[in-house]
Amino acid sequence: MIDRLIGRIQETKAPIVVGLDPMLSYVPEHIQKKAFGEFGETLAGAAEAIWQFNKEIVDKTWDLIPAVKPQIAMYEQFGVEGVAAYKKTVDYCRSKGLVVIGDVKRGDIGSTSAAYAAGHLGRVKVGSQMCSGFGEDFATVNPYLGSDGIKPFIDVCKEEKKGLFILVKTSNPSSGEFQDRLVDGRPLYELVGEKVAQWGEEHMGESYSYVGAVVGATYPEQGEILRKIMPKAFILVPGYGAQGGQGKDLVHFFNEDGLGAIVNSSRGIIAAYKQEAYAKFGPENFADASRAAVEAMIADIRGALEAR
Amino acid sequence: MIDRLIGRIQETKAPIVVGLDPMLSYVPEHIQKKAFGEFGETLAGAAEAIWQFNKEIVDKTWDLIPAVKPQIAMYEQFGVEGVAAYKKTVDYCRSKGLVVIGDVKRGDIGSTSAAYAAGHLGRVKVGSQMCSGFGEDFATVNPYLGSDGIKPFIDVCKEEKKGLFILVKTSNPSSGEFQDRLVDGRPLYELVGEKVAQWGEEHMGESYSYVGAVVGATYPEQGEILRKIMPKAFILVPGYGAQGGQGKDLVHFFNEDGLGAIVNSSRGIIAAYKQEAYAKFGPENFADASRAAVEAMIADIRGALEAR
Repeated sequence: MIDRLIGRIQETKAPIVVGLDPMLSYVPEHIQKKAFGEFGETLAGAAEAIWQFNKEIVDKTWDLIPAVKPQIAMYEQFGVEGVAAYKKTVDYCRSKGLVVIGDVKRGDIGSTSAAYAAGHLGRVKVGSQMCSGFGEDFATVNPYLGSDGIKPFIDVCKEEKKGLFILVKTSNPSSGEFQDRLVDGRPLYELVGEKVAQWGEEHMGESYSYVGAVVGATYPEQGEILRKIMPKAFILVPGYGAQGGQGKDLVHFFNEDGLGAIVNSSRGIIAAYKQEAYAKFGPENFADASRAAVEAMIADIRGALEAR
Repeated sequence: MIDRLIGRIQETKAPIVVGLDPMLSYVPEHIQKKAFGEFGETLAGAAEAIWQFNKEIVDKTWDLIPAVKPQIAMYEQFGVEGVAAYKKTVDYCRSKGLVVIGDVKRGDIGSTSAAYAAGHLGRVKVGSQMCSGFGEDFATVNPYLGSDGIKPFIDVCKEEKKGLFILVKTSNPSSGEFQDRLVDGRPLYELVGEKVAQWGEEHMGESYSYVGAVVGATYPEQGEILRKIMPKAFILVPGYGAQGGQGKDLVHFFNEDGLGAIVNSSRGIIAAYKQEAYAKFGPENFADASRAAVEAMIADIRGALEAR
């Protein structure tokens, strides 16, 4: 799956991923109205609204991008119906040939991580049948519980040729509270990065590992260091755009081969029509605004990589 | 909600929680057969099987216990249908008067944690309506992202009178890999414990905080230290029984008032009929075996507390 992701990045020349994190407040009035008309102002109505919103954005951007990253929290907020919309989104994106990174940030003790891994990346035995739960291609994973929380994910990834992005240094302002604390004189995120590199050796694709890392765009200096600590890990970089990161800050997340990182933007793409720069599209054509924002993001990152 | 939990513990004289973590391999043949007969060997069939299994255990134990802790991973492995069984389980347990601790171990950056908090503990606005997603009473939360990942959970807890258990020192063998690393000469879990105590001051019940901690039964010495660092935090203690913890090891997780901790057992209760000690019940009466195992666990912990 890491090789397929790399293949798609090379085809599209776009090391980016669109974060499908639909807040109801991003969904244009006309879509909400239609969904609520059909299902009422209920969880089912909300789920229908975000699904229709996603679908239109995917239809207008899939040919430009290698991957999407639905954030499952934005679906879980709408309960079981929301989770069903997540699954629909995953399936639809895969049917369009997109690589799907499930931003689930799961992580637990061994047997429980094994259940998460089976549900999101693998299959589960039901009687004599093997069934697939959510079927994403990659999942994000929280490392706080250590190796025996991570290993079951790696086992499933090996069997199913799926991949992981493990949280190393997150994009939020207080990420440093624990992640930056010095252990033997070095920040914790570096130790986690070293573990990611070790775990990754167990499951290599052609040139990169199936085990990647999450490092926030908002911490470019840390990104540069972590790039060297984990040379074979693909880095998923959230925090571009709305959270403050820009193309020129991100060049050090990439290796010399122009690969090794994939930059996520969520709000900046899916709610682009709400920005002044794209206001001309209007809420009716929100997905065209998303396409324009994708094009601008690709140009920004491509330009920064060419200029280095 | 922490006051309600304490009230229930005092009524039942049982500082325990039953972990509803149904693996299909725990579900007796006759229940699987019936569910698969109705829904096939599908995710829906598996979901029906675990729901029926849960229901029978709850029916046979609810009067003895204050709370249950469904582990959402065990439901997510069966996809959307599994998540629907989780929701059914939460609702059923609440209808029986049980406090429901959603073992979801969520945690993300601010806006995303807010969505998880709304979905699991709070409500979400849909048009002019406020809707509840999963509706647990407590949730477990992962602290790796720091304060701004935790604060949105606390905000929702304040509004809805719900509670949290934040991972401090987990029960698994490799929990020490990051959690035990020394920061300024002290293990990371102590710093996290201090933060839990600080966060907890913001949201106090009568005698304990709404913000609790998870500390594994398998680390009793650390439990004793953490008890002192977080005097007002309720400690959720997993790892009893199948993972190796025993009543006598757990007394230091409790305060002098006999409160301050609630001990979880999952496999040891719900799959009790598979143990030699309870084999006489047979698979048909698996829930009676669970009741007997609950009684034994209560006696063990009560005895240990009285003997100290």
